[in-house]
Amino acid sequence: MTLLDDLDDVGRDPRSGGYRRHVWTDADAELRMWFAQEAARRGLDLVEDANGNQLAWWGSGPGAVLVGSHLDSVPDGGRFDGPLGVTSALEAVDRLRSAGHVPDRPLIVANFAEEEGSRFGIACLGSRLATGALEPDRARALLDRDGTSLADAMRAHGRDPRLLGRQSWIDDVSAFVELHVEQGRALADLDAPVGVGSAIWPHGRWQLDMTGCADHAGTTRMEDRRDPMITFAESVLAAHREAGPSRATFGRVDVAPNGTNAIPSRVRAWLDVRAETQEEVDVLVRAIVDAARRSGTAQGVDVAVDEESRSDAVVFDLPLRERLAELVHAPVLATAAGHDAGILSAHLPTAMLFVRNETGVSHSPDEHADTVDCEAGVEALARVLQDLT
Amino acid sequence: MTLLDDLDDVGRDPRSGGYRRHVWTDADAELRMWFAQEAARRGLDLVEDANGNQLAWWGSGPGAVLVGSHLDSVPDGGRFDGPLGVTSALEAVDRLRSAGHVPDRPLIVANFAEEEGSRFGIACLGSRLATGALEPDRARALLDRDGTSLADAMRAHGRDPRLLGRQSWIDDVSAFVELHVEQGRALADLDAPVGVGSAIWPHGRWQLDMTGCADHAGTTRMEDRRDPMITFAESVLAAHREAGPSRATFGRVDVAPNGTNAIPSRVRAWLDVRAETQEEVDVLVRAIVDAARRSGTAQGVDVAVDEESRSDAVVFDLPLRERLAELVHAPVLATAAGHDAGILSAHLPTAMLFVRNETGVSHSPDEHADTVDCEAGVEALARVLQDLT
Repeated sequence: MTLLDDLDDVGRDPRSGGYRRHVWTDADAELRMWFAQEAARRGLDLVEDANGNQLAWWGSGPGAVLVGSHLDSVPDGGRFDGPLGVTSALEAVDRLRSAGHVPDRPLIVANFAEEEGSRFGIACLGSRLATGALEPDRARALLDRDGTSLADAMRAHGRDPRLLGRQSWIDDVSAFVELHVEQGRALADLDAPVGVGSAIWPHGRWQLDMTGCADHAGTTRMEDRRDPMITFAESVLAAHREAGPSRATFGRVDVAPNGTNAIPSRVRAWLDVRAETQEEVDVLVRAIVDAARRSGTAQGVDVAVDEESRSDAVVFDLPLRERLAELVHAPVLATAAGHDAGILSAHLPTAMLFVRNETGVSHSPDEHADTVDCEAGVEALARVLQDLT
Repeated sequence: MTLLDDLDDVGRDPRSGGYRRHVWTDADAELRMWFAQEAARRGLDLVEDANGNQLAWWGSGPGAVLVGSHLDSVPDGGRFDGPLGVTSALEAVDRLRSAGHVPDRPLIVANFAEEEGSRFGIACLGSRLATGALEPDRARALLDRDGTSLADAMRAHGRDPRLLGRQSWIDDVSAFVELHVEQGRALADLDAPVGVGSAIWPHGRWQLDMTGCADHAGTTRMEDRRDPMITFAESVLAAHREAGPSRATFGRVDVAPNGTNAIPSRVRAWLDVRAETQEEVDVLVRAIVDAARRSGTAQGVDVAVDEESRSDAVVFDLPLRERLAELVHAPVLATAAGHDAGILSAHLPTAMLFVRNETGVSHSPDEHADTVDCEAGVEALARVLQDLT
């Protein structure tokens, strides 16, 4: 029985078996309550910052070491992506205490808000706001799928959105270590239970709004149509064709009016692109957008493109990374997945630990990590924290 | 001020300006109330049959002439598709009475339930059930987008779904005339305000379930994916490429989990196909499904196809059609749009009148018919009813 088991039922969709833990929902409130109780049980001082990030302090003052991850999920997400980093941090604290360790600086366990960006579209929303990387005015105006703004969603959960913005606790942190389930098979191939992160690929999200003309699916001749579904389909295939060793995905689409016998008036689709270099990201996005625009011209469909978010390449702090690799005798690997550690790395020395995922599957109910590997992750994290504090 | 103006605000989406009038919703209840009041105002005897079809009788007994259409809409539908046939029928009754006409047989004004099939997927649901063309067991189990069954939706509105099925009032009807806004530009090209229907193209709806494997949009290499969005895109382009003079449309799609950073696990899409002959429908559907399956094989995506509904070719009753054309001096034309008249034509002499639509646009908030043409429609319908009763 591990801490992660406590969360098995929270926000789980009975049909898919996956998790729907989106910020400022009932499931999110339940997760926050759980985190607060676990902090209290350990005598940690809980603070929720104005952006909804929960911080449980062991000690106080400057020079703190931050450790943690996030409890939110993608729609129909898995059990480990996020929560494993939070529960492992709490369990590492337990190990340090059992071992009689007395930290020489504060240690903070964090649960970051809306890391997946599943509700309001911008990944790492909590850490972006806390570090000043995102304008509070832009954040407040973000809309979810039902048209509810972040400001209204926060108010509905008793928070004041006027307070969103950069937080001074950032200045008290000297290092951040995020443990996360691996989202690929590199560790499995290397036969290693734990790895150390070297870098995060640059990535971003683009929203494509394709506007045609609604009409009757029976009476409108094919050649008279302005059907944005055609332009969407050509964009999907362009992404698939152009990606090469990089990644380009259309995973989310919203069609209006979405009726069987109506040609759509509008297709809104989200493009996720990642590559080893920023230049490769730019070239790939341009190729896909060009294909969308060419199709739009041919079909009489207007194509508008909006950059929803963008994360530059992250190279984790070299001394910290080397120290970790030495402490836990683990291989070093890069990832194409974004993390709060990527946001914080622009402000302070940051490192990541990855736990082996045999199948590599993530963002799916099938995501899995063996218990023995999760324990190795806790052990590695405890060793790192013992060294850093 | 016409009767149609009464309905301007019912079920209108403030954002799109289109109508969302789906069966067994609040908007539907408001429309039913309105129809009942208009029937009462004219001293017509209102009956709602067990399938939710409203029938307002002028007189009673066998040999009745049925006239009307439907009040429901596609999502974001226009003002005329459906309601124009109902309000024109009521206004035609008013004209007959003003002219002192005493019918020699009963006249029934009808509002058919769920003609568009927008909520439960099967078009002409009310007329299919009333004529025995659809099994009540199958109807009761139909699910809407939220997973609510027709049976539950009926119960929530105080109806008893156990009573669904064939209705004996059908046996009392000797003819049906449905007036409808035209959903193409044939009458505009012919410079005629009103036309007479000759036939309805055979058509149907197929549901394609494309199942792949959810995974992380960043960490999963393109060649390791089983992405059903690719198969969907290839199906959309196959439909567009293969349709020729027929029609093939993907207007509705449902993606799971529909997250920006998750490769979809499943894409469910609805294909609407119509052609001049049943054989052409079959050939076209086969070509599109074959393309979907080929893509599925290449992508590791499972493709399941379900025929949701199918309507055979309809040729309207020749003597009745010729009588109408003579009475209203109107051109005769076929349509690729389905109607309750198509369902009833299998059981009794049926005819249609079309009212000019200058742009041809339908199933859209931009659908339009000029008031003077709508009045010509009422005048034509009154002349036909005077002759038939």
